[in-house]
Amino acid sequence: MRPIDDSPIVRDGNACILAMDHGLEHGPVDFEEVPEKLDPATVFETATHDAVTCIAVQKGIAEGYYPSYEDDVNLLVKLNGTSNLWMGEPDSSLNCSVEYAAEIGADAVGFTLYGGSNNEVEMAEEFREIHEAAREYDLPVVMWSYPRGQGLKNDTKPGTISYATRLALELGADIAKVKYPGSADAMEHAVQCAGDMKVVMSGGSKTDDLDFLSTVEAVIAAGGNGLAVGRNVWQRENPERLLDALEKVIYEEETADAALEA
Amino acid sequence: MRPIDDSPIVRDGNACILAMDHGLEHGPVDFEEVPEKLDPATVFETATHDAVTCIAVQKGIAEGYYPSYEDDVNLLVKLNGTSNLWMGEPDSSLNCSVEYAAEIGADAVGFTLYGGSNNEVEMAEEFREIHEAAREYDLPVVMWSYPRGQGLKNDTKPGTISYATRLALELGADIAKVKYPGSADAMEHAVQCAGDMKVVMSGGSKTDDLDFLSTVEAVIAAGGNGLAVGRNVWQRENPERLLDALEKVIYEEETADAALEA
Amino acid sequence: MRPIDDSPIVRDGNACILAMDHGLEHGPVDFEEVPEKLDPATVFETATHDAVTCIAVQKGIAEGYYPSYEDDVNLLVKLNGTSNLWMGEPDSSLNCSVEYAAEIGADAVGFTLYGGSNNEVEMAEEFREIHEAAREYDLPVVMWSYPRGQGLKNDTKPGTISYATRLALELGADIAKVKYPGSADAMEHAVQCAGDMKVVMSGGSKTDDLDFLSTVEAVIAAGGNGLAVGRNVWQRENPERLLDALEKVIYEEETADAALEA
Amino acid sequence: MRPIDDSPIVRDGNACILAMDHGLEHGPVDFEEVPEKLDPATVFETATHDAVTCIAVQKGIAEGYYPSYEDDVNLLVKLNGTSNLWMGEPDSSLNCSVEYAAEIGADAVGFTLYGGSNNEVEMAEEFREIHEAAREYDLPVVMWSYPRGQGLKNDTKPGTISYATRLALELGADIAKVKYPGSADAMEHAVQCAGDMKVVMSGGSKTDDLDFLSTVEAVIAAGGNGLAVGRNVWQRENPERLLDALEKVIYEEETADAALEA
Amino acid sequence: MRPIDDSPIVRDGNACILAMDHGLEHGPVDFEEVPEKLDPATVFETATHDAVTCIAVQKGIAEGYYPSYEDDVNLLVKLNGTSNLWMGEPDSSLNCSVEYAAEIGADAVGFTLYGGSNNEVEMAEEFREIHEAAREYDLPVVMWSYPRGQGLKNDTKPGTISYATRLALELGADIAKVKYPGSADAMEHAVQCAGDMKVVMSGGSKTDDLDFLSTVEAVIAAGGNGLAVGRNVWQRENPERLLDALEKVIYEEETADAALEA
Repeated sequence: MRPIDDSPIVRDGNACILAMDHGLEHGPVDFEEVPEKLDPATVFETATHDAVTCIAVQKGIAEGYYPSYEDDVNLLVKLNGTSNLWMGEPDSSLNCSVEYAAEIGADAVGFTLYGGSNNEVEMAEEFREIHEAAREYDLPVVMWSYPRGQGLKNDTKPGTISYATRLALELGADIAKVKYPGSADAMEHAVQCAGDMKVVMSGGSKTDDLDFLSTVEAVIAAGGNGLAVGRNVWQRENPERLLDALEKVIYEEETADAALEA
Repeated sequence: MRPIDDSPIVRDGNACILAMDHGLEHGPVDFEEVPEKLDPATVFETATHDAVTCIAVQKGIAEGYYPSYEDDVNLLVKLNGTSNLWMGEPDSSLNCSVEYAAEIGADAVGFTLYGGSNNEVEMAEEFREIHEAAREYDLPVVMWSYPRGQGLKNDTKPGTISYATRLALELGADIAKVKYPGSADAMEHAVQCAGDMKVVMSGGSKTDDLDFLSTVEAVIAAGGNGLAVGRNVWQRENPERLLDALEKVIYEEETADAALEA
Repeated sequence: MRPIDDSPIVRDGNACILAMDHGLEHGPVDFEEVPEKLDPATVFETATHDAVTCIAVQKGIAEGYYPSYEDDVNLLVKLNGTSNLWMGEPDSSLNCSVEYAAEIGADAVGFTLYGGSNNEVEMAEEFREIHEAAREYDLPVVMWSYPRGQGLKNDTKPGTISYATRLALELGADIAKVKYPGSADAMEHAVQCAGDMKVVMSGGSKTDDLDFLSTVEAVIAAGGNGLAVGRNVWQRENPERLLDALEKVIYEEETADAALEA
Repeated sequence: MRPIDDSPIVRDGNACILAMDHGLEHGPVDFEEVPEKLDPATVFETATHDAVTCIAVQKGIAEGYYPSYEDDVNLLVKLNGTSNLWMGEPDSSLNCSVEYAAEIGADAVGFTLYGGSNNEVEMAEEFREIHEAAREYDLPVVMWSYPRGQGLKNDTKPGTISYATRLALELGADIAKVKYPGSADAMEHAVQCAGDMKVVMSGGSKTDDLDFLSTVEAVIAAGGNGLAVGRNVWQRENPERLLDALEKVIYEEETADAALEA
Repeated sequence: MRPIDDSPIVRDGNACILAMDHGLEHGPVDFEEVPEKLDPATVFETATHDAVTCIAVQKGIAEGYYPSYEDDVNLLVKLNGTSNLWMGEPDSSLNCSVEYAAEIGADAVGFTLYGGSNNEVEMAEEFREIHEAAREYDLPVVMWSYPRGQGLKNDTKPGTISYATRLALELGADIAKVKYPGSADAMEHAVQCAGDMKVVMSGGSKTDDLDFLSTVEAVIAAGGNGLAVGRNVWQRENPERLLDALEKVIYEEETADAALEA
């Protein structure tokens, strides 16, 4: 953890990461209801909204589409990721080096760690390598800290999420992206476990506007630093309205209700 | 994915890759009916046809035969591949480095990824390495994107092929080579999943002229960019007539019927 | 083993390492009764006590908090460590390189070796690498020498602890950190097995002041060189009094009774 | 495959490799009837015969004995090999780097590939590395192409040997060393599968002079390029007579009968 | 194998290696009857005897004690070794690089190879690396050639020991250290299998003076080059007398009887 408040992926201490690596992680099925979003340009377009501090995509998408948006969007290259065709213990292949991410213009890098997987040790060692390389390029490191694997059935219980943020802090992440642990109290504890490191909530599957914003409001109230959101934004017909509201909740500490009414 | 329309392996935005690595992947049995084609020179000869944008061979064949054809043929070195004596989970050994491929004159490189294999993570990490090395040498990267392995019985169903093209896009390929998913609609979806990346159909086993060309016609109509063909060309007595027709279907958007009649 | 009496982590030949990597190794559960200690700054504060020769933390904590304490605290970066979500044979991922530890100001490095684990061979080879790198940076190496794994049920029996100190000596450690083998005699033998290498006792879970200090007194009497302590210090409301006493026992060879009375 | 007719290990387009790595591969038992041949100098002596284009030995033998014969013998360093104490799937450790082989005077290098073994992928990747290193040193590469392992019971059937020569060609070998497939027709097919690459027969266990020479005659007639022979030469009391005959059969296309009568 | 008669670890063509890595390989239990020998300085003291051509220790012991003896003792750094807490297939971790061994003053390096273990291939490849690095530093390489593992129950039968010496020769060792195969004839065969490479007997557990010396006498008579001895020397109250006798048997070809009487 290093101070990253001056990084372009942070705004007033908080962050809103628009993630779009679902084509790799889940497959085209995530786009079934919004087939036009299969065109990555549409999501980059959405990422130009002021609420979004950066877009998070895999290397191939970044190579192909970021050149057209580099003036208007900040780029987080997600360094690892695996298709859900994979049937082994949770694992994630390193698909991009930090060097290459920097070369194609990354402002930050992301990495998934499956704590508790039988591949945890190997993944943590890969994290060491990308972390230290990222320090050389002065790129903030966001850890998708997702305990998962043999013996970890319910991966959103409070103790798991608190462990997830602590793991990220101890291993050197600058921001931990974790699932919502189900309550504001549990989120507050997870944030406390993170020390001075930032914590953002993982958006999850698409839900109702107010429900979604209320959870974000709870994260901010708990001391969290925003969210990383994907389907909840780009699976909507018109994501603009939600992003306007998110901007208010994340950076201006408005309530979900007030933000939606505006 | 990077723009490759200026690459020699592309003609008017499309490509026709003449593949001849069957001696490695399937063994000499693929040449039983055309033993004279065991001599790679005969296939290089065929590759001089204008319809063919490049020949795809393994390193050893490239070393031995490309020097005589370098003025008339473009070379894609297939970097990995494994014999079918192999009885483990789908895997493919990396038989040639990008550096060496460039040294022997490659205009592009190819790589097989078996998504869903228990070796997927390792193969994807090898892909990262060859992809980033290929960028240094400015060589387009073609991914043979073939989901296969434990739990993936039918590897040509529409969802699998769409996932295959998306995987290739996300991981950084410039062209994905996939099997035909059985219908024009499915092919169109697979092409849509690929964004701006090119998609070519894998030729498969030898079929009747019209059937074969009609499928190619469907690929082009679906927005695909041509094909990679092997047995359907060099297992024929006289491949010239088929290549003449392919040229019309792939680059001039003629129908299969019209192309065959000409 | 090299002479390290001039190192800042040693005082009058002995050492008191304040360890705080429990958030990684055990999870936030270790902080349940003292939630304010989840803030690493509080433990760094404690480490400014003269009894403490260095603080031992993981890379992420060092990055985030050491810059504020570099004038008042000596830093030992623990190079490996694994969460207890891990369910495989005892193993520990290498989370920090020696190069990076040196860059962030380390005065020494630490490494856990699980002798007897099915991962022993691999861990010993990682130890070789960090040991030789540490020599280049002139950083003392502390081995957490913890025999553990298949077939090693009771890991504090005298023969195990003696083997643990000998292993550390043979492999090149400068200090071995081992569990207390249950008696002064056994501790003396473990120290004898270590030759000229220093041995410190691992503090273990929180106990009563006098019990704890009496064990430390026994370690010193047995020729040991102090202790590495975590929970027994920072899980206390006011660790100052205990540290005052520890200082007398470790560096001035006072008895536990006398030290507590002072 | 590159043109190697100018290499010292080739004479008039053909080759006769005197192999003596049996002490590693089979153990001292192969020398039971000729214990004096345990002294490698005796086999180097034999290799000075004009019929022999090079001797093939492991690194240790080359280091110890080649310096005395470097003016009279050409050296092929066999880079991998494993004792028959090994009870796992067919595998072969890489015992010598190309760099070191070149340093001790190698004129060529050799490598065993067990196609079909569960270690095939790993071995092929090792082959890639030694192949590309050998190109840098301009050393011809001979592949001991021996399909073997799980599911490959009879490893000399025609289809297997044809696949073996093709594998060698595709992967980049300059000469394939294969077992005799049992008939002249099968040998001819195996040679045809090899394209322009050279093929030599593996000598096998000791047989009668005429039988042995007749097989060599068949290999030459089938378009093969000679043989790699070990026991059939050095297990004989006086190998001179057989080598005289071999010279006639391999380089002068004499029949076995005529060669023996001379 | 290279000529090493000029090396400091050889005297008149023979060698007597005083080994003391038992603390690692067997644990402190080997010192139970001679606890004062837990202090490595005592064994270095013994190694100053003229009979001893070098001491063989692990890196940590060398670092700590060799600086005081570098004028009077030659140093062989044993590069690998594993505790007997290890319960897997025979294996040995590489605990020291050749570079570091050279840096701390090594005159030679040692390496254990367990031929026949399921780790044989991996160990042989590690041997390749240390062997070639040792050549760069001009350090003789001693192989502890110990066939062991699945299916190898009796590891001292004649055929096993002969294979062990041959393995060492083929792979490039300068001296093989093997167990005594039970008879002078078997030893002679093992020596013959080693060609010009030197063979020393492994001392084994402590026995009676005359028995021990008689075996050494047999080794010398069989053409062997001495021994590597540990417990038979340093487990004795006064090793001086035995070393005096060993000196006569190894370098002056005296009989055991004569040597003991002197």
